[in-house]
Amino acid sequence: MIRHETIRPPKHIYPIDQWRIVENAFYPDFLAQTETLFSLANGYLGMRGNFIEGRPCSENGTFVNRFYESWPIVYGEEAYGFAKTGQTIVNVHDAKLIRLYVDDEPFFLPSANLLSYERVLDMQRGTLNREVLWEMPSGKQVLIQSTRLISFEHRHLAAISYRVTLPNDTAPVTISSHLVPNSQSESCQAGQAIAAQGSDPRRRDLSDRVLIPDEPHVEGNRIFMGLTTRRSKMALACGIDHQILTRCEYTTETECVEGRAKVVFSVEAQPGEAIQLFKFITYHTSRSEHPQELIVRGRRTLDRGMQTGFEKILESQREHLDDFWKRSDIVAEDDGKGTHAGMIQQALRWNLFQLFQATARAEGGGVPAKGLTGQGYEGHYFWDTEIYVLPFLIYTAPRIAKNLLRFRYEMLDRGRERARELHKKGAIFPWRTINGEEASAYYAAGTAQYHINADIMYALQKYVNATGDKQFLYEFGAEMLVETARLWSHMGFFSEKKDGMFCIHGVTGPDEYNTVVNNNTFTNLMAQENLSYAAETVEALRTDEPEMYETLVFKTQLEDSEVDEWRRVAERMYVPSEDSTGILPQDDSFQEKEPWDFDNTPKDKYPLLLHNHPLDIYRHQVIKQTDVILALFLQGHKFSVEKKRKNFDYYDPLTTGDSSLSSCIQSIVAAEVGYMDKAIEYGRDAILMDLADVQGNVKDGCHIASMGGTWMVCVYGFAGMRDHGGELSFRPRLPGRLVRLCFPLQVRGHVLRVDVNLASVTYTLEKGSTLKIAHYDEVVALEKDAPVTLPIPTE
Amino acid sequence: MIRHETIRPPKHIYPIDQWRIVENAFYPDFLAQTETLFSLANGYLGMRGNFIEGRPCSENGTFVNRFYESWPIVYGEEAYGFAKTGQTIVNVHDAKLIRLYVDDEPFFLPSANLLSYERVLDMQRGTLNREVLWEMPSGKQVLIQSTRLISFEHRHLAAISYRVTLPNDTAPVTISSHLVPNSQSESCQAGQAIAAQGSDPRRRDLSDRVLIPDEPHVEGNRIFMGLTTRRSKMALACGIDHQILTRCEYTTETECVEGRAKVVFSVEAQPGEAIQLFKFITYHTSRSEHPQELIVRGRRTLDRGMQTGFEKILESQREHLDDFWKRSDIVAEDDGKGTHAGMIQQALRWNLFQLFQATARAEGGGVPAKGLTGQGYEGHYFWDTEIYVLPFLIYTAPRIAKNLLRFRYEMLDRGRERARELHKKGAIFPWRTINGEEASAYYAAGTAQYHINADIMYALQKYVNATGDKQFLYEFGAEMLVETARLWSHMGFFSEKKDGMFCIHGVTGPDEYNTVVNNNTFTNLMAQENLSYAAETVEALRTDEPEMYETLVFKTQLEDSEVDEWRRVAERMYVPSEDSTGILPQDDSFQEKEPWDFDNTPKDKYPLLLHNHPLDIYRHQVIKQTDVILALFLQGHKFSVEKKRKNFDYYDPLTTGDSSLSSCIQSIVAAEVGYMDKAIEYGRDAILMDLADVQGNVKDGCHIASMGGTWMVCVYGFAGMRDHGGELSFRPRLPGRLVRLCFPLQVRGHVLRVDVNLASVTYTLEKGSTLKIAHYDEVVALEKDAPVTLPIPTE
Repeated sequence: MIRHETIRPPKHIYPIDQWRIVENAFYPDFLAQTETLFSLANGYLGMRGNFIEGRPCSENGTFVNRFYESWPIVYGEEAYGFAKTGQTIVNVHDAKLIRLYVDDEPFFLPSANLLSYERVLDMQRGTLNREVLWEMPSGKQVLIQSTRLISFEHRHLAAISYRVTLPNDTAPVTISSHLVPNSQSESCQAGQAIAAQGSDPRRRDLSDRVLIPDEPHVEGNRIFMGLTTRRSKMALACGIDHQILTRCEYTTETECVEGRAKVVFSVEAQPGEAIQLFKFITYHTSRSEHPQELIVRGRRTLDRGMQTGFEKILESQREHLDDFWKRSDIVAEDDGKGTHAGMIQQALRWNLFQLFQATARAEGGGVPAKGLTGQGYEGHYFWDTEIYVLPFLIYTAPRIAKNLLRFRYEMLDRGRERARELHKKGAIFPWRTINGEEASAYYAAGTAQYHINADIMYALQKYVNATGDKQFLYEFGAEMLVETARLWSHMGFFSEKKDGMFCIHGVTGPDEYNTVVNNNTFTNLMAQENLSYAAETVEALRTDEPEMYETLVFKTQLEDSEVDEWRRVAERMYVPSEDSTGILPQDDSFQEKEPWDFDNTPKDKYPLLLHNHPLDIYRHQVIKQTDVILALFLQGHKFSVEKKRKNFDYYDPLTTGDSSLSSCIQSIVAAEVGYMDKAIEYGRDAILMDLADVQGNVKDGCHIASMGGTWMVCVYGFAGMRDHGGELSFRPRLPGRLVRLCFPLQVRGHVLRVDVNLASVTYTLEKGSTLKIAHYDEVVALEKDAPVTLPIPTE
Repeated sequence: MIRHETIRPPKHIYPIDQWRIVENAFYPDFLAQTETLFSLANGYLGMRGNFIEGRPCSENGTFVNRFYESWPIVYGEEAYGFAKTGQTIVNVHDAKLIRLYVDDEPFFLPSANLLSYERVLDMQRGTLNREVLWEMPSGKQVLIQSTRLISFEHRHLAAISYRVTLPNDTAPVTISSHLVPNSQSESCQAGQAIAAQGSDPRRRDLSDRVLIPDEPHVEGNRIFMGLTTRRSKMALACGIDHQILTRCEYTTETECVEGRAKVVFSVEAQPGEAIQLFKFITYHTSRSEHPQELIVRGRRTLDRGMQTGFEKILESQREHLDDFWKRSDIVAEDDGKGTHAGMIQQALRWNLFQLFQATARAEGGGVPAKGLTGQGYEGHYFWDTEIYVLPFLIYTAPRIAKNLLRFRYEMLDRGRERARELHKKGAIFPWRTINGEEASAYYAAGTAQYHINADIMYALQKYVNATGDKQFLYEFGAEMLVETARLWSHMGFFSEKKDGMFCIHGVTGPDEYNTVVNNNTFTNLMAQENLSYAAETVEALRTDEPEMYETLVFKTQLEDSEVDEWRRVAERMYVPSEDSTGILPQDDSFQEKEPWDFDNTPKDKYPLLLHNHPLDIYRHQVIKQTDVILALFLQGHKFSVEKKRKNFDYYDPLTTGDSSLSSCIQSIVAAEVGYMDKAIEYGRDAILMDLADVQGNVKDGCHIASMGGTWMVCVYGFAGMRDHGGELSFRPRLPGRLVRLCFPLQVRGHVLRVDVNLASVTYTLEKGSTLKIAHYDEVVALEKDAPVTLPIPTE
């Protein structure tokens, strides 16, 4: 259902701008939200958009992907096989903190008299900039300009330019550059943050768990500080160093007191003379280096950063983004009318930019549900990556897509162990994890979501089809396919009650409002594909690469009979049969349930999970997020548009969209079945998810999956692309006020640009020779640099 | 299924004896089990059968019913409405501890050279006695005789007689009588106990939670010690005092060191001169007294105990047991053949004795699942009381039955609050609790067991029918009926998919291996009865007692339309329809599930819950304990014997009996449908549950519900009694080697004795005038003291 009919971001905060998110004034009420929205990250390191002075602050946050503490999960009542090890991403040292004192008065935003204020997230430059002109009670004016970035070029490096100028006065100016363990960052009202967290099950705080700090290590203006996690035994070292440029006189002093360190620059500021400080920051962890070598690595990174210099780093940042936008930008032009003209373009770019920040240098890590923008979902990796983020990456950055699939492969052994623990053959990928161990402490909406096995294999298949990367398929994919197919084949059964069809019981589909059900349609369809693809791949491998096949057999003890069994299971997979109205039941019991009383559920009682006992939710016909509808999208080639429409009609009013993963899919399917108004509303919901704080929890971090979903809304939804079996087809139709949608795609080494207008589409093959695509029902063979323009049929 | 075909208690430990459990030698391997088996209790206070010297010890335990500590339940992932407050019965001070030193050598059972040893639980005297003759390495012999009891007459009093005699020698003898906080009872290998506990979800230890001890309070040979629980804010005071009788010279000293206190008697023992120590023990808690008055109350109890004297207390103990056995004994004579002749009689009496110990003076408390014999299930009250223990009490001790129902009434307001929290009308009784708050931290096998509402009302109805106590029904029962009926009416719905029948979804029945199901037959049948009885009672109250009716309406805001609605709901209650074979499905999906692979489940993999993830159990056709079969017993008048037989045939092979609540019901229904062999096997399983340690966890405490079940096995099973609507009928048939079964019943003020022989039954009305009963299909009007003997029809 459409719950949010007039979603718009607060315009006074984000005036429309094609490439920037601009805040024109300091809005304390939006502090928590803007800390997320102005986050910087490069996939390895992330910093929330906290003010550089550290105050005011809702939740200070610096995260290194996959750097986590683990803890034994405590259950009120435990049972066999419950997940044992919780994992939470660590909020590491705050190295960006810089304090300013003029005439010994601290600069403190909330009470400062600001003659001008601008904060800008620049999506072309990859920087967060702020410029304020502060008038002190004494009448002195102080211009403070800062730019910060997390380097895409230098994975372990962040840098800050902090520049203070007194246009007309002199004064003693103190710039104090800090490095503090985050738990001690008293500037942040941690108590409040924890209190505000309340009992929202989607958040967790490590504040009550102890990290072991190392003693600070001082080398002139350079300071290192480290920590070791108590239980996961991971080590981290953070270092800062400084360059100061000014014609004013200054002294420097480095202080370390009680585990807090700072370099203090005391400057006699002269009128109009800028005081320019560059701060270089590095983080290294024991994931890539021996704990004792972390500082050595840190020194090297700081040396390189300082030798390169801030300006050059800025340039390389721009180059990386130029490359990113070239590969990934979606031009979305509207008709320019109304006060919100340009809003969609801006929001879309912001989503894409955050996707880049979440994935660019993840290398060896996954994509946390919130990227590196907050501690929501504890920095865990879910199916979000494969189903929501990978389509974007597969078509715009296949190398990164491959890294992420490879990262899943690294977890395969843990998945095998988990399967053995649960007396199953094959492997069970964890529903949520950082280190590969299942970390879901609530099995009904965790362990029971076995579909993640099939989701990962679905993404593998899409990657292989879109890239043609058989090497990856054979070297890593096949082994995962064998183990996941085994799981499906072993956990279901041929049921006499269902005419000998293969049933899968006791699972939870994507919809977490109907858990532990039998024959979830989504799961069965996805498992079926998983099994078929596994059989097909093993067969092809045996033919194409007999030696690699032998290796696979050796590694997995694969028997021929298993492959036959997978085929038989796939063929006889039970899909809850449609009733006379053509509705695919979500599971065996969904349609038996009591209707939810939507009429008497006020808007402030959503999401339902925060206001109702799970049992109450589960016993009603109410859906958190698309489930059958998602299956009809992912396995769309198996169903007619007519059937999709009927099912959309049935399920849409029952779907609360309490999950951010829902709107994008609803938009895509609505577009496919011709419900353009709904496609627009849901699309807007997805695209503005975070900027307009649709779910009310953007303070906890960006909804990265929904961001991937916005790319899908444009490409699969409005451009009507489908890629079943790797063959691209398009049925574009621009919605509402959009007049142009233009984006590039990488397909098996080709680069295709799709430029949709109101009446026609132009397909241009920018790289590669000959690519066959379908435009509506017409097959077109594109040749390089020979644009083909085709009309969009009228409805 | 029958898993245990040749269950027998270890005979060397318990030689057959009609009224006693006798241990003829010290068996360290059975230490943990015998600590439970030799427990003493009076329903208020309980002490495990630990050796009086405190060592060796598996788990030292002293419990006061309903004296608990609470704690916030921690969830790995929390959700709305999850139970918040855990509760655990406190293992309070150990006051029974007495140490003995002869020639400064401690008496330590495991290393002592014992010339004789006997430990006896005397079920006629209500005492635990031990007599050992110890030969010291020096050759000196020491006779140690002890008797201890927990008084049935003096609820707060326990007493110990400890008598030491050196038949032929002299020696300095030190008797050191202790009072120690249990957590400090270092004599007990607490570490081992906790380690052994492992992750069995049915146990919990408070050792990591801190109780606040009071300073000891010394008054000569009298010592008081107290504690306050940190969170539940309950206070307890324990006191001990002493009398010593001996012709030998002695001195006395009282010591308190670091929260441990003792009175030390140093005696110059003379040959053949007994040293007789009496120790009196009292426990009072803030449940019945202001914390500051606890010691005053304790003094009074000790004064009374010492004035009365140990011998008189022994006498009153015997009187209470004489009365108990008169009301409650079941004579079960076998044919006297074989080595196990008499075993069933002994075991049966032991079960009845433990029932008495668990309930006699519970007054204001409930009956914990383990009575007061161990910390298993944390001292919680479950449906065990109403469905398994109350039938016994209703027919043998209706006053106690009433107290227990009244105790539930005291919890009604908490149940109302819980219903409001879950957005439900009426009241929801907690699945497990001490203080009335839901304490189940795993909702699938806790909160979801809404059937407890109907179970309590079922027991109420049985109590009212058997006693005719309309006063209780109208004063307390009606209000509970209104609120429980409201709950059912509000939590289900009239389903279009089921022809407008009333469905109840998302509940768990008695069988915890199939949770959160739709239309659990047991629940629907029991709810139906609950609704009908509520409507009927309200109607009768309106007619019989208009003023009480007005009070009820005022208290509950009852509207006429509600009562009509309950009737409509009851009439249209959906019961999963039988298929062509006459099988009642356990729930909507049970029969769709995959069969469990029993053939490949070795015996050591039971109970399944300790070896399989709940999801794996739930997705299979496997049953922990009777569910449909229990419904066919409790609502037996609604089903033909033929139908019961068919359902027994179907469900019995699927029922693991992993719960101790199963065997007794299987035995009863087997007897009814004519499967006498199974009736015997299951009956034996139930009757020997603890003595033969069938479930392997008797160390954690007695299975009180199964003990109530053994009474039911005899009365409902072998004597074939049924009492639907309060009218008694009998279809007796003695199984196996039994040649006589004789027991009394109290019915509406009458006392009926039923004496079953192989070929005939004699019914004697020992009290009251005229009682109609049915013997097979014949109705008989009994007159006082006019026995009627009727033949048992041949099959």
